Amino acid sequence: MTRHPEMDQVTSKLTELLGGRCSTASAVREQHGKDESWHFPKAPDVVCFAKSTEEVSSIVKICAAHKVPVIPFAAGTSLEGHVNAVSGGVSIDLNEMNEILRVSPEDLDCTVQPGVRRKQLNEFLRDTGLFFPIDPGADASIGGMASTRASGTNAVRYGTIRENILSMKVVLPDGRIISTGHRAKKSAAGYDLTKLYIGSEGTLGIITEITLRLYGIPEAISAATVSFPDIEGAIQSVILTIQSGIPVARIELLDEVQVDAVNRYSNLELPVQPTLFLEFHGSPAYVKEQAERVSEICSEFGAEGFKWTTQAEERTKLWQARHDAAYAAMALRNGAQIWATDVCVPISRLADCILETKKDLADSFLIAPLVGHVGDGNFHLSFVIKKENPEELEEAERLNSRLIKRALSMDGTCTGEHGVGLGKKKYMYLEHGDAVDVMAAVKQALDPDNIMNPGKILPERAAE
Amino acid sequence: MTRHPEMDQVTSKLTELLGGRCSTASAVREQHGKDESWHFPKAPDVVCFAKSTEEVSSIVKICAAHKVPVIPFAAGTSLEGHVNAVSGGVSIDLNEMNEILRVSPEDLDCTVQPGVRRKQLNEFLRDTGLFFPIDPGADASIGGMASTRASGTNAVRYGTIRENILSMKVVLPDGRIISTGHRAKKSAAGYDLTKLYIGSEGTLGIITEITLRLYGIPEAISAATVSFPDIEGAIQSVILTIQSGIPVARIELLDEVQVDAVNRYSNLELPVQPTLFLEFHGSPAYVKEQAERVSEICSEFGAEGFKWTTQAEERTKLWQARHDAAYAAMALRNGAQIWATDVCVPISRLADCILETKKDLADSFLIAPLVGHVGDGNFHLSFVIKKENPEELEEAERLNSRLIKRALSMDGTCTGEHGVGLGKKKYMYLEHGDAVDVMAAVKQALDPDNIMNPGKILPERAAE
Repeated sequence: MTRHPEMDQVTSKLTELLGGRCSTASAVREQHGKDESWHFPKAPDVVCFAKSTEEVSSIVKICAAHKVPVIPFAAGTSLEGHVNAVSGGVSIDLNEMNEILRVSPEDLDCTVQPGVRRKQLNEFLRDTGLFFPIDPGADASIGGMASTRASGTNAVRYGTIRENILSMKVVLPDGRIISTGHRAKKSAAGYDLTKLYIGSEGTLGIITEITLRLYGIPEAISAATVSFPDIEGAIQSVILTIQSGIPVARIELLDEVQVDAVNRYSNLELPVQPTLFLEFHGSPAYVKEQAERVSEICSEFGAEGFKWTTQAEERTKLWQARHDAAYAAMALRNGAQIWATDVCVPISRLADCILETKKDLADSFLIAPLVGHVGDGNFHLSFVIKKENPEELEEAERLNSRLIKRALSMDGTCTGEHGVGLGKKKYMYLEHGDAVDVMAAVKQALDPDNIMNPGKILPERAAE
Repeated sequence: MTRHPEMDQVTSKLTELLGGRCSTASAVREQHGKDESWHFPKAPDVVCFAKSTEEVSSIVKICAAHKVPVIPFAAGTSLEGHVNAVSGGVSIDLNEMNEILRVSPEDLDCTVQPGVRRKQLNEFLRDTGLFFPIDPGADASIGGMASTRASGTNAVRYGTIRENILSMKVVLPDGRIISTGHRAKKSAAGYDLTKLYIGSEGTLGIITEITLRLYGIPEAISAATVSFPDIEGAIQSVILTIQSGIPVARIELLDEVQVDAVNRYSNLELPVQPTLFLEFHGSPAYVKEQAERVSEICSEFGAEGFKWTTQAEERTKLWQARHDAAYAAMALRNGAQIWATDVCVPISRLADCILETKKDLADSFLIAPLVGHVGDGNFHLSFVIKKENPEELEEAERLNSRLIKRALSMDGTCTGEHGVGLGKKKYMYLEHGDAVDVMAAVKQALDPDNIMNPGKILPERAAE
């Protein structure tokens, strides 16, 4: 790829606007061209550190005038190469836009800048008695989570970030600033631009403010672990729990490979068996009732040793271990990286999908622990690879492709929460058919010069 | 408006396709040009009765070739003139597409055709132990509810229809058929076309299949009523209930005017005071606990006579009365019609918004009972008018305009659940600013000839 012919002009205009907050230093550029994925990095030509929506707008206007690509950047924790500057251009670093602008306990909502991290938000909220439930493994930025339609362990009860954003401020590809909605809990006033921008991965504009729904910290919280002789029993327990309307807050599956990794990395002593991690929210009496009912269901499917606790310390240790699952997987092999992938299927197909996938893995030379937000039918594989070995990349690619085609054949999706980025573009037509053309028409209408994070989400068409 | 020059050609092609299921009889046309709103009807030129997605596709292809407008029709219960054929054209009646195609109790989902009514679906589901919670007042069609982003009394617990559609089949403006998604509970695979089509009011395509989330019928259900000396006490009780995380399934406000109307129409004997109707879902113990906690909260704000029941018969009577609120309003005055409007504001502003609105009403000669899905900050006025009196229309228009501007000044929306249709187009720029241009760009990209339900949602631009 050759450098954009007007890049120097753009750089000098950006320097004029931002002074030292516009950098072409190679270390800075390199840091902004990579995420936590297996994808090979590609640095932008320039990095701008923006401090306000108006500055983002000014930067975008300069880039638009020269048709230079713009890529938003914050935590850099995405898993499909979302921040890689595949066509060069300008990375807008939003980490300095990390203020919590407003919290309304009466309305159970708040407004934050895109660089705010999820843990930062919850620490800030603690004294208000409120919390924000969306929790991908990494300490991601709220802007990045909105852009990739993130979720996490609480989605089974609280929904994904899709259900928890009321409105956003967005800088359009021509630099204009819009609000996608208001603070009302619901609206029937026109096309749902909030939802259009959630998950658009920076390809339709840059999110510069997010209004989020919050929840009261439950009066009582209890966590539980329970081990099963086989994975099918675990999944059947999940299905019956959800069907019974028990409002579990979290219900996570770890296969025996992942349990082993977690035991080593997080110093737990779980039986090396398929295991569910659970959490219950409510009044003290109701939390107890939920735990008892789920325990009964699990026993029906052969589980032993249902352990539950209301101790905050034990709970925290458990969930930190769950969030560190990918790092635990990485630690299974010296010098290894993780190729993380995820699919989501109707829960009735989850057992089949997981069992067939584990058969694939049993026949492969790669290790890949499995964890899942199984209440939603969503699960992950972490291929433990060394990127420098082409045969390992090839094998991960082969297993990933089989996994995705399996999920699609079960009326599922090629990604439940990681997003498309670079890695899953090639599956978009397979999953969506002609609907991809509708997405492409929307992209063309809103970003006719294709400057917003080009090369992500939409596959190149055969005709082009 | 003159008749489309190629209307006769289109009619003869449609007759060839559908035989007797293509009608130009004036009684049929007139029935398809009106809804339950105050808007003056406008009949289409032709009505087609479609039996399948493929037929809808064929009809749309014929219309597209001649650039003739297409308007979907089912129950005809919309409240903002959504089905009025303002530019003539072809009404596609979807009432014969009323099959429930699939129910999966394991996945808690089902797929239905757009002509299925909400009551029909719940009657069908009863034996499965499942239910579909979205309940606008009328017995609306699921297709219409999806098109207008409908909600109802259960939204505070279960979300609106927006949160309860997994995927749809849509006929595009060129006749191609797409799926907007799959049956996975969540997906991060590209732009959210499902949400783009929800609430698009037929302006981007025609919805021909809907996959819905379902819920287990709760083990125990209790309903309650409680009266307050003033409306502010009622609203403060709602705010504290929501903040406390008590998962009320329904929490509805009726002002004293509406209570009086409901008493007469539905033969109840409620004190003529601001009143909350509530419902609690859960286990028997949890339902009791919720009712007790809410009763305590209401007492703090001056309520007396909190009555609750688990009797199915009493509950049904109560909620039928609530759903009939608009008809009860209509019955207040012989030969009157209803101009129904709704707004939604952050709940912290709800008391102010309602009190200022009631001040307006006190100074007006029009009667307008007030009901609200107050857990979401959403409330309705039913102006009791006679359409033939221009001064009444003018006064309703004036009050409605003041209501909407008040809601917008409080960071709310001009409609929480009725949709834009014809009636709220003029407020779209006021509410959304430049974001309307983004909506218009999407419309232009997907329906360049503007044949899909033209004249709805998007305001005419000054420049055009």
